[in-house]
Amino acid sequence: MRAEGAWASLAKWRNELYPIYAPTGDPTRVVAMVERASSYNFGIRTYGVHINGFVNGADGMRRMWVGKRAATKQTWPGYLDQIVAGGIGNGMGVEESVIKECYEEGGIPESIARGARAAGMIQYFTQSELGLQPETEYVYDLELPLDFVPKPTDGEVEEFYLWTMDQVVDNVRKNLFKPNCAVCVVDFLIRHGYLTPENEPDYIEIIQNVHSPLPFPGPK
Amino acid sequence: MRAEGAWASLAKWRNELYPIYAPTGDPTRVVAMVERASSYNFGIRTYGVHINGFVNGADGMRRMWVGKRAATKQTWPGYLDQIVAGGIGNGMGVEESVIKECYEEGGIPESIARGARAAGMIQYFTQSELGLQPETEYVYDLELPLDFVPKPTDGEVEEFYLWTMDQVVDNVRKNLFKPNCAVCVVDFLIRHGYLTPENEPDYIEIIQNVHSPLPFPGPK
Repeated sequence: MRAEGAWASLAKWRNELYPIYAPTGDPTRVVAMVERASSYNFGIRTYGVHINGFVNGADGMRRMWVGKRAATKQTWPGYLDQIVAGGIGNGMGVEESVIKECYEEGGIPESIARGARAAGMIQYFTQSELGLQPETEYVYDLELPLDFVPKPTDGEVEEFYLWTMDQVVDNVRKNLFKPNCAVCVVDFLIRHGYLTPENEPDYIEIIQNVHSPLPFPGPK
Repeated sequence: MRAEGAWASLAKWRNELYPIYAPTGDPTRVVAMVERASSYNFGIRTYGVHINGFVNGADGMRRMWVGKRAATKQTWPGYLDQIVAGGIGNGMGVEESVIKECYEEGGIPESIARGARAAGMIQYFTQSELGLQPETEYVYDLELPLDFVPKPTDGEVEEFYLWTMDQVVDNVRKNLFKPNCAVCVVDFLIRHGYLTPENEPDYIEIIQNVHSPLPFPGPK
């Protein structure tokens, strides 16, 4: 099917296996494995980690590191992204994925990456030309040292920018972020008091919608 | 009906009117007002603010202020609560309610209360002997000065405790918190990295469930 181009998704073959969890009873039981690229065709639930990397300046100003995805990325090339984000591969733990992706995508050493703090998750179910994608992204916040500069080590990021929160919001509004990365930014803005019940009329709806339950079993 | 004791809820008469919002079209339109105590009988959606008051000690230890509800409170007397929490009355803004409740319940002056930072909302639909309660609680975090000591000014709180996060969790586990206050503590533990995908098997389910959509219109 891949050779015949039967599904658009298969053109983005990853050589990476994703687990399908058992529907009931034992939530730790993996019933099958599928190539990551084909998960879209079966609507397989997938998981990832997104790390909000920021600095609190001596001037009292908070700035966020933003990555620009390489032009060669199979999905959303050239779009803006968190400093570090990635899918959780089979058998990988959540924090293990945070440490691994921090090093691979941003050149962040483990000594700094260990400071990443779990801060929740966002969840959504999207449909695209590739198929169906019910996904959970574990969200982490990582305050970086003022003198740290991330560097791409695996070629997945073209460039990093250190932006004020206003610049970040401006780029979210212009739809220059990969959509799920934009949702992570919005979640950050809510948790840190930039978006409030007073300045955002859809405050409740946004918070509900970015934590929607998915109708499939997951791991424990 | 109040005189006849027709509904258990009416014994807890508040002399306070709550708004019912229009179902469609104009979300700012209030279609009727009901006595707060009877909102349970009609399943009227209600709103409140909960403020997590904490200090970051010089010893690196975070401690949280916890209130013990007065024995004379009409609901959940003697249970543990946030340092400040209260319902949003008709016509009150969210931040206005934060400032008002901070002063009335904890003797927190406006100069300090203005430091409260919006951090999201929790939402739930409960049923009790009083009736049905679909409720949204706007959640705020307030870092307090180390030398500040809250004091009850309106008699709604019997006593305040300054506890380590371990002591707070211990009391949540013992069901000594009013249930929605316990949910606010859990939300705080998630947002600040005490509960993580690694140490809490129900991490995803908890985050989904405390942000459940309610099947009724609300204000904008």
